[in-house]
Amino acid sequence: MHSIKDLIQIALKEDIGPGDITTDNIIDSEIMGKGIIVAKEPLVIAGLEISGDVFTCIDPDVVCRFLFKDGDSVAKDNVVMVIEGRLRTLLKGERTALNFIQRLSGIATNVRSYVENLDDRKIRLVDTRKTIPGWRMLEKYAVRVGGAYNHRMGLYDGVLIKDNHIVACGGITKAVENLRDKVSHLVKIEVEVSDLPSVKEALEAKADVIMLDNMDMDRIKEAVSLIGGKALIEVSGGITRDSLKLLSGSGVDIVSVGALTHSARSMDLSMRII
Amino acid sequence: MHSIKDLIQIALKEDIGPGDITTDNIIDSEIMGKGIIVAKEPLVIAGLEISGDVFTCIDPDVVCRFLFKDGDSVAKDNVVMVIEGRLRTLLKGERTALNFIQRLSGIATNVRSYVENLDDRKIRLVDTRKTIPGWRMLEKYAVRVGGAYNHRMGLYDGVLIKDNHIVACGGITKAVENLRDKVSHLVKIEVEVSDLPSVKEALEAKADVIMLDNMDMDRIKEAVSLIGGKALIEVSGGITRDSLKLLSGSGVDIVSVGALTHSARSMDLSMRII
Amino acid sequence: MHSIKDLIQIALKEDIGPGDITTDNIIDSEIMGKGIIVAKEPLVIAGLEISGDVFTCIDPDVVCRFLFKDGDSVAKDNVVMVIEGRLRTLLKGERTALNFIQRLSGIATNVRSYVENLDDRKIRLVDTRKTIPGWRMLEKYAVRVGGAYNHRMGLYDGVLIKDNHIVACGGITKAVENLRDKVSHLVKIEVEVSDLPSVKEALEAKADVIMLDNMDMDRIKEAVSLIGGKALIEVSGGITRDSLKLLSGSGVDIVSVGALTHSARSMDLSMRII
Amino acid sequence: MHSIKDLIQIALKEDIGPGDITTDNIIDSEIMGKGIIVAKEPLVIAGLEISGDVFTCIDPDVVCRFLFKDGDSVAKDNVVMVIEGRLRTLLKGERTALNFIQRLSGIATNVRSYVENLDDRKIRLVDTRKTIPGWRMLEKYAVRVGGAYNHRMGLYDGVLIKDNHIVACGGITKAVENLRDKVSHLVKIEVEVSDLPSVKEALEAKADVIMLDNMDMDRIKEAVSLIGGKALIEVSGGITRDSLKLLSGSGVDIVSVGALTHSARSMDLSMRII
Amino acid sequence: MHSIKDLIQIALKEDIGPGDITTDNIIDSEIMGKGIIVAKEPLVIAGLEISGDVFTCIDPDVVCRFLFKDGDSVAKDNVVMVIEGRLRTLLKGERTALNFIQRLSGIATNVRSYVENLDDRKIRLVDTRKTIPGWRMLEKYAVRVGGAYNHRMGLYDGVLIKDNHIVACGGITKAVENLRDKVSHLVKIEVEVSDLPSVKEALEAKADVIMLDNMDMDRIKEAVSLIGGKALIEVSGGITRDSLKLLSGSGVDIVSVGALTHSARSMDLSMRII
Amino acid sequence: MHSIKDLIQIALKEDIGPGDITTDNIIDSEIMGKGIIVAKEPLVIAGLEISGDVFTCIDPDVVCRFLFKDGDSVAKDNVVMVIEGRLRTLLKGERTALNFIQRLSGIATNVRSYVENLDDRKIRLVDTRKTIPGWRMLEKYAVRVGGAYNHRMGLYDGVLIKDNHIVACGGITKAVENLRDKVSHLVKIEVEVSDLPSVKEALEAKADVIMLDNMDMDRIKEAVSLIGGKALIEVSGGITRDSLKLLSGSGVDIVSVGALTHSARSMDLSMRII
Repeated sequence: MHSIKDLIQIALKEDIGPGDITTDNIIDSEIMGKGIIVAKEPLVIAGLEISGDVFTCIDPDVVCRFLFKDGDSVAKDNVVMVIEGRLRTLLKGERTALNFIQRLSGIATNVRSYVENLDDRKIRLVDTRKTIPGWRMLEKYAVRVGGAYNHRMGLYDGVLIKDNHIVACGGITKAVENLRDKVSHLVKIEVEVSDLPSVKEALEAKADVIMLDNMDMDRIKEAVSLIGGKALIEVSGGITRDSLKLLSGSGVDIVSVGALTHSARSMDLSMRII
Repeated sequence: MHSIKDLIQIALKEDIGPGDITTDNIIDSEIMGKGIIVAKEPLVIAGLEISGDVFTCIDPDVVCRFLFKDGDSVAKDNVVMVIEGRLRTLLKGERTALNFIQRLSGIATNVRSYVENLDDRKIRLVDTRKTIPGWRMLEKYAVRVGGAYNHRMGLYDGVLIKDNHIVACGGITKAVENLRDKVSHLVKIEVEVSDLPSVKEALEAKADVIMLDNMDMDRIKEAVSLIGGKALIEVSGGITRDSLKLLSGSGVDIVSVGALTHSARSMDLSMRII
Repeated sequence: MHSIKDLIQIALKEDIGPGDITTDNIIDSEIMGKGIIVAKEPLVIAGLEISGDVFTCIDPDVVCRFLFKDGDSVAKDNVVMVIEGRLRTLLKGERTALNFIQRLSGIATNVRSYVENLDDRKIRLVDTRKTIPGWRMLEKYAVRVGGAYNHRMGLYDGVLIKDNHIVACGGITKAVENLRDKVSHLVKIEVEVSDLPSVKEALEAKADVIMLDNMDMDRIKEAVSLIGGKALIEVSGGITRDSLKLLSGSGVDIVSVGALTHSARSMDLSMRII
Repeated sequence: MHSIKDLIQIALKEDIGPGDITTDNIIDSEIMGKGIIVAKEPLVIAGLEISGDVFTCIDPDVVCRFLFKDGDSVAKDNVVMVIEGRLRTLLKGERTALNFIQRLSGIATNVRSYVENLDDRKIRLVDTRKTIPGWRMLEKYAVRVGGAYNHRMGLYDGVLIKDNHIVACGGITKAVENLRDKVSHLVKIEVEVSDLPSVKEALEAKADVIMLDNMDMDRIKEAVSLIGGKALIEVSGGITRDSLKLLSGSGVDIVSVGALTHSARSMDLSMRII
Repeated sequence: MHSIKDLIQIALKEDIGPGDITTDNIIDSEIMGKGIIVAKEPLVIAGLEISGDVFTCIDPDVVCRFLFKDGDSVAKDNVVMVIEGRLRTLLKGERTALNFIQRLSGIATNVRSYVENLDDRKIRLVDTRKTIPGWRMLEKYAVRVGGAYNHRMGLYDGVLIKDNHIVACGGITKAVENLRDKVSHLVKIEVEVSDLPSVKEALEAKADVIMLDNMDMDRIKEAVSLIGGKALIEVSGGITRDSLKLLSGSGVDIVSVGALTHSARSMDLSMRII
Repeated sequence: MHSIKDLIQIALKEDIGPGDITTDNIIDSEIMGKGIIVAKEPLVIAGLEISGDVFTCIDPDVVCRFLFKDGDSVAKDNVVMVIEGRLRTLLKGERTALNFIQRLSGIATNVRSYVENLDDRKIRLVDTRKTIPGWRMLEKYAVRVGGAYNHRMGLYDGVLIKDNHIVACGGITKAVENLRDKVSHLVKIEVEVSDLPSVKEALEAKADVIMLDNMDMDRIKEAVSLIGGKALIEVSGGITRDSLKLLSGSGVDIVSVGALTHSARSMDLSMRII
């Protein structure tokens, strides 16, 4: 699995390639500079240290100072970060650093707007695996920065039995039992269901978590009462900022929303040499 | 520079990690399956072959059939692709394959909506370097699929002299002359300017392309007439779908729009085992 | 995280390096050969396919046939596998292939001897993270082949709160609560304790699993009765083949034994060209 | 060929993966700590610097102090090393660092017990290529630490003509001659033989080293007298700590023992935060 | 694309491999040393910092002092660089460092001899893609150090339409038009032609650069007059130091010479420990 | 250590980078083509399969046919190889394939000219470590193709004690003894000497090979007689094609010549689409 440092390297290589032919040919390597990164719209900032790392990855002598910390709400025109070092480094790293912070702040800002609509503090809002390939760790980080929680990181750190698994395996009971015997005792087993008989079967199979997929509010209520606290309940599918509110007091434990990541747009930030 | 194949590998490792503990423990490795990928909303499709490669990267025996080709408009509920192979492979690759095609189709669909607003066919709509780190090649590909053009790929394959370069170098003339002497004779030199005196200086320095940054329509017109065909003219900064229309017949050659990539949301596609 | 294929490549490069100067200089590249791998002592076989992959990794044209499957008990002098292909490939891959199968069979054989001493089928015998660096996945695989279970794969797929965590965090309760709020709802929380008051505290903090570390049988019994089924119980520390037997009927759920991996010796297998 | 630093990276990635979800979520990144590594049984220590490198590889600010040096005999309960740095780093690196030092000390301790049984100081005790894949350099290092010598590192830095080579090549004479003409003049040629006529043939072909494979003591003596100092003599196959003694004064130059590496068990060391 | 740092690593691994068995076994790791690199013949020096990096790549504590800078003419027996650090590092890096500086100085010296024969300062002498695989960036750097210019870096940063492209595409006009529509507006289009009708066609297709391939002086003159400043003119094919002189005043803009790189021999430099 | 396949990948990435913007935009991916590689001057061919691998590395469907084999003398205008496959692949791989075969044939041709001047068949002409960084294995291969032998591959597979080692170690005797005790019994020890007393000392220390560095013919003769067959004798330093002849019958065993590799120029070969 690649680290964030690896992704920064990949990003710099893809942008700079064999060389920044403008900057390298025109800016003397000894000229020093100072840059500031400015929010061009109100946002929840995320990715400050990561964009700082973009510059230090080009040249370890660059020094970055952060005026906010990830998760802070930042007003338009606020300076979020100051970068000092060789002017060449600042100009070469600018676009890549901004591309990181713009995307991550975009997610954090988006997530925050969902969190603010969630009145019932007992419900845990979580993300999904609908993330940009290569960005899983980063996007899940931005989700936490925005105030929500993470579902499993990938296919390796949590069991989620879906429709296709159930069919291929011959029923929920068999699927849960088989898995219980195979996975570590530290891993919970979640089962995705879309009707009440399946809820019942999952419950009897002792699923640790039951995911109610695309159920309407009435059926969710029935399921909650049926489960009666014997398993955690996750609601999934088509949740909007508005429908989030409706879940207050429903007894649901977890709500997962793909749009936290897949529908976030980048925030506008820019760098100025001063 | 990483290839698209490298990115697919990265994506699979980040999702599957040490193993898909649900699928590997519950689905026999010999069970075969057939999946379809379906558009859940109208979209311009992009990334068909790439998502096919996700599956063949896990298991070369998987066979993918495409019912559309990249760039086609696809209606809601249309099947875009059929995948046949081991059920394990289908389930393990599903999310990653969808994450690729959802993002790429998101960009292509977004770009198409801009292109449709561009009446003047002599104007070239181009993207910027505001792309997701690691995704430069892919996002630029999706831009072409959507019907627009690419600006330079990175800092290595085109010269763009910006404000900070000009200041550090002591003026446009000096910057252009220095660069002309250093870069290959196959590379054009573009200068970013924000007022008319700079347009004049760039013109006299024989810039090949002049970028009018954040100018209003009146100043754009003055600049066009000043340049008089002696350099290509690029307009940049805050262009919307609507303001695109206003550029018709203006004599501008190129319009660059960061939102083509940075503000695209993912399209909704899903996979079903049949 | 590296794959098993990566480890095979690493192993071949480390043994062959710039070239097998004996074989490459003396054996014509077109000569074909047939080799058999033979058990030189009774063993539980593990790693058949992996050692086959060593040869196909050098030359995809090699064909391996397996006469047993991983987990089978094999008597002395039994042929476990036949390899056909270029003689050069057989000679170059021999040592590396044997090094894999000898170590893995060593672990499987060792594990089997523990499993056979475990009368109480409700107790799950599990491994630890005491594995050869680079071999975690492989050794955990051999443990399963031998008939035992895996504890968590690494630090990323299960929570285990140890002494040092508890001290630094200010007590079990605080540690468990903090973690519950941070990790995915699919991850169970295990707490390591070494006395009964801590058992009580872990229970009240709603730990999912309680690990009794280095406790004697009397205290284990007290702990089991205290916990009363409200958490899974793992016993750890200094378990031998003999003390395993004593745990029968104790009500303990899991026993973890580092010696499954760290004290296994390689089994003796050799290759003969026939 | 991978370096030891590469192996440390591989090991850390395999254990920590996307993150230590216990430590990272519960231990503040600024808390400092001090750890000691203690021998839990008498041993010959090996791998001190390497386990130190595990910690500095996570965080270069960690400082390690060594109270012994590789090769020293260490009594039970002695502290071998002190590590100071962020507590997070100490906890994340603990298991991996111990896994290195436990295995390497296991080999060194095992080797030392053979060396102590070798009365004849003119005989060189050497290892074989029976090492854990990925660990060749490290295990050969631990062999030297234990007091024995290394045979060739791999297939690239020494010629050893075995049975299969001889058969495929048409006899010892032809094999040696062919090789002499192909390999660098700095490489010696060793021939493995199992009977006296082959000894004679190897001698006539001017082999630099003759390996007597699985011969009994009487035949070894005959071979030694036959060779009469005209080639180095290596004895190989089934040597135990006891049979080593019998070789004293036999005139043999080298004894190779696979068990030095393949039958070593890990030594018991643990880390304590103080 | 690999960086120069990557190439240094590759070079050190290929030379040192698993270890410098002479130096590591005989020179104590604490002995310090001082080495000088001396020109054994007159040369234009290139690669000073790169060879310094070879040593610091082995051990960051090495300090290098340069007595010349790349591009200087150096007389026989002059010291070009002083290296201080562990003697082990000096001895291990010696050959690799010399191999870099000898090749790069070889190219720079060769290029300089061509540049000195180029009287017409308006003509730009450029290299080709005839470089040692893996060395493109370095050899192009040495060309600039020698006083000439670079043609495109590779196939990605400039368009050069050759014979085979023209044939496959159906004529120069179509090829140029197709390409103009596909590549970024920052990339110039060059067409290779070998007769005058093709020159005319390229001109009409608005090629930015026309390459006259293997034309004699008379035809070159005709082509120059035909083109009349409407495109840049490159001359290519079989140019020698002598024929370079003849191009003076011809109106040609660029001359490309493969021999700048592919026929350079290494300069003689050696290292002495003092 | 990188493989030749790795170097081909590196070379292709450095030339093609993010894409061949001429070919990819203008040649349809389905057009098939046939190319021939032609010798433009008489040469000893080397690198046929390697340049074939360049094409198959881009596209495994390409088929290469070789009309000569490495080591053959090829006359001007002879076709050495035919390549069939997608035209795109042919055009993209052309330059890289030629760069490999031109350099390797350059070395083989150069070596052959030395070998032809070596009348005394008992003398072994060998190369040195003066090779292009990254090309060690390839250049040593071309040396063998040309008819000479290889010295050690690198610092890891042979001991060569030089001046600096001797000084730092306190004399030849000590250096040889120390090394004998440290290196594998399969490695010979060579000592570089430049005067007769050192020859004597090396002989007494039982060096396996003695390298006479930069000695004139008279002193070489004295050394040969002094050594009297008790060690192999290598002559090194400033050997030319002419001085090679003078060594006939001198009793010297090995002559090493750096110019075999470092002074070879590329041969002229070109590719034509037919």
